[in-house]
Amino acid sequence: MKNFDCHIPTKIFFGENQIQVLGDEIKKYGSRVLLVYGGGSIKRTGVYDTVTKILKESGIEFWELGGVEPNPRITTVEKGIKIARENNIDFILPVGGGSTIDCSKVIAAGYFYEGEPWDLVIGKAQVEKVLPIGAVLTLSATGSEMDSGAVISNMETNQKLGVGHPDMAPKFSILDPTYTFTVPAKQTAAGTADIMSHTFEAYFSGVKGAFLQDRLAEGLLKACIKYGPIALEKPDDYEARANLMWASSLAINGLLEFGKGTNRWSVHPIQHELSAYYDITHGVGLAILTPNWMEHVLDDENLYKFVEYGVNVWGIDESKEKHEIAREAINKTREFLKCLGIPGTLREIGIKEEDLEKMAKSAVENNGGSVGTYKPLSYEDVLSIYKASM
Amino acid sequence: MKNFDCHIPTKIFFGENQIQVLGDEIKKYGSRVLLVYGGGSIKRTGVYDTVTKILKESGIEFWELGGVEPNPRITTVEKGIKIARENNIDFILPVGGGSTIDCSKVIAAGYFYEGEPWDLVIGKAQVEKVLPIGAVLTLSATGSEMDSGAVISNMETNQKLGVGHPDMAPKFSILDPTYTFTVPAKQTAAGTADIMSHTFEAYFSGVKGAFLQDRLAEGLLKACIKYGPIALEKPDDYEARANLMWASSLAINGLLEFGKGTNRWSVHPIQHELSAYYDITHGVGLAILTPNWMEHVLDDENLYKFVEYGVNVWGIDESKEKHEIAREAINKTREFLKCLGIPGTLREIGIKEEDLEKMAKSAVENNGGSVGTYKPLSYEDVLSIYKASM
Repeated sequence: MKNFDCHIPTKIFFGENQIQVLGDEIKKYGSRVLLVYGGGSIKRTGVYDTVTKILKESGIEFWELGGVEPNPRITTVEKGIKIARENNIDFILPVGGGSTIDCSKVIAAGYFYEGEPWDLVIGKAQVEKVLPIGAVLTLSATGSEMDSGAVISNMETNQKLGVGHPDMAPKFSILDPTYTFTVPAKQTAAGTADIMSHTFEAYFSGVKGAFLQDRLAEGLLKACIKYGPIALEKPDDYEARANLMWASSLAINGLLEFGKGTNRWSVHPIQHELSAYYDITHGVGLAILTPNWMEHVLDDENLYKFVEYGVNVWGIDESKEKHEIAREAINKTREFLKCLGIPGTLREIGIKEEDLEKMAKSAVENNGGSVGTYKPLSYEDVLSIYKASM
Repeated sequence: MKNFDCHIPTKIFFGENQIQVLGDEIKKYGSRVLLVYGGGSIKRTGVYDTVTKILKESGIEFWELGGVEPNPRITTVEKGIKIARENNIDFILPVGGGSTIDCSKVIAAGYFYEGEPWDLVIGKAQVEKVLPIGAVLTLSATGSEMDSGAVISNMETNQKLGVGHPDMAPKFSILDPTYTFTVPAKQTAAGTADIMSHTFEAYFSGVKGAFLQDRLAEGLLKACIKYGPIALEKPDDYEARANLMWASSLAINGLLEFGKGTNRWSVHPIQHELSAYYDITHGVGLAILTPNWMEHVLDDENLYKFVEYGVNVWGIDESKEKHEIAREAINKTREFLKCLGIPGTLREIGIKEEDLEKMAKSAVENNGGSVGTYKPLSYEDVLSIYKASM
């Protein structure tokens, strides 16, 4: 186990009707709020009405930024910063999923930076000061509600990149599983794949001796495998939605990565290129790539890890031959993601063979020459995974 | 899953040589420190020298309270408060295990309370203000390094009771697994039993639908089962010590109990009576009582939970008859604790038959008429568990 510092600053208010704490929690930090949301589903579901009613009753002034894209764009961040500056905003309140929260985080950081906010994303400038953020979550997926990172897309440069700073973590997040009852099947599936992918990125780390962390990761995977299909079958199953929601936060709040050292992710960066070029749903890209990534990296050295995964997560008989267990584990992963209704190939989601080389090149360039630390991926590796995913 | 608020305020610095952060971390809160420790093992191991050297080099003045008992006494708390008041202490630094940290927490709370500090323990007065605390952990067991509770004994009244307040959680804790290399086998075993018992208290809760939390708990139990024996066999095995140390914190920082509602513990309170009357090692008492408690509470309604435990933690074949799995799981628990070298009966640790009724009566009285919420224990239940443990 490697050394680590564990500090989880975000307070979580979890459960039905926890929204009632919203007014008091915001007032600890500010009184002029920028309310940020996405395509408007929160208006259809009533969450928007609930939130704005509480803000009004609490005497909190607010301004709005709607229309945040599923892959939030730097242009929307710029819009948010403008509204925030014009109105002396002192608190950012995203109500939505990871995109809305990510967008809010970069608005909060960009507010204090005089240059172009994209500079912060590409690392040309460092985040130094951040407006306080509190989130109301409506989608179980990215875990952005309990971490300090954000991923922003620039459609002009075809880049989708991450930025993080400890102060970008929300001060609090409200997680009411009933808010996810209306999430469409497609997004529930993609969200589940996203949670699983975050867990895989920590689980397949190459660091031995972080036994405890790996058992926790397996617990999260089991929760996704159990409750993903239930949430699809019965969208208002509270138990399923609650387990997925809490798994989404725990997958990325540090718990699974503490003790794993500097672990650079593998599948996320190569997925980001798909979204940057095609604006596809993040979780769908992850689900398609993951089993092919597993097949590509599996070798004699890491075989033990795939065996662990197969036996502990999928309950494969441990007396079987090790390679057989590994292959079965990968197949079960593929089948499971398919059974969630997620397309199985990049072709099905409209990605063209002729763009693969370009995207593989970007993936490697955007990640300092190779992708990930588990088994560092070269240009040829990334291209091979893309091709296997077609 | 029940509603919950999750807020984990303690920063953890985990790993070898993390002690180097001590000076800077303390200076965020104070400059006049009360250094609290136990029987002096930290002087033999060199941790005392390391800590005091850092304090001196950081220009931090400190006063000392040594000799905290394994079951820390209210008289020692009083001594600490006196030193703290006389010297305008503004920060408490326990260096040791749970006893030292617990004692420090009540010194920190009692500092601001004008009456007898025992009032705070028995609930005659409420904790309102607390001096900041930072801990250096030298024993993996109670988890006090990452929670907000403390257990204090009063040998005059034969009471061992708990008190808690959010501000009693350490601001930071330094967890260096190498500091536990010198922990004697007996204490390593008792500590492992303590971690497992905390996990059981959360795991056997009666709340259905907290699936994820139960899988996390199983992960902790597996870590104890794997690494307890290794730490005994090879006391300087870093991986074993690291996994046990992190398990000790995660078992009690809330992670396993979030979503479980108001869960009153079962085995801890009936163990506390043994320590209150006999001053025995907490973890030893827990280890003796736990399998007998399991046997006593097992019924048709909670059978499923013992089956889950047996299959997921002990790898018992799930095709076996359910009652058989449950019995086998309990037997494996008993055997495991025995293989750690912990005595199997209360008689062996000097407890006398004639005191059982008195202690059972106290257990029920100190817990509002019945013990625990999993299957509330009456006087007869507690007595029966004590008798089965003789």
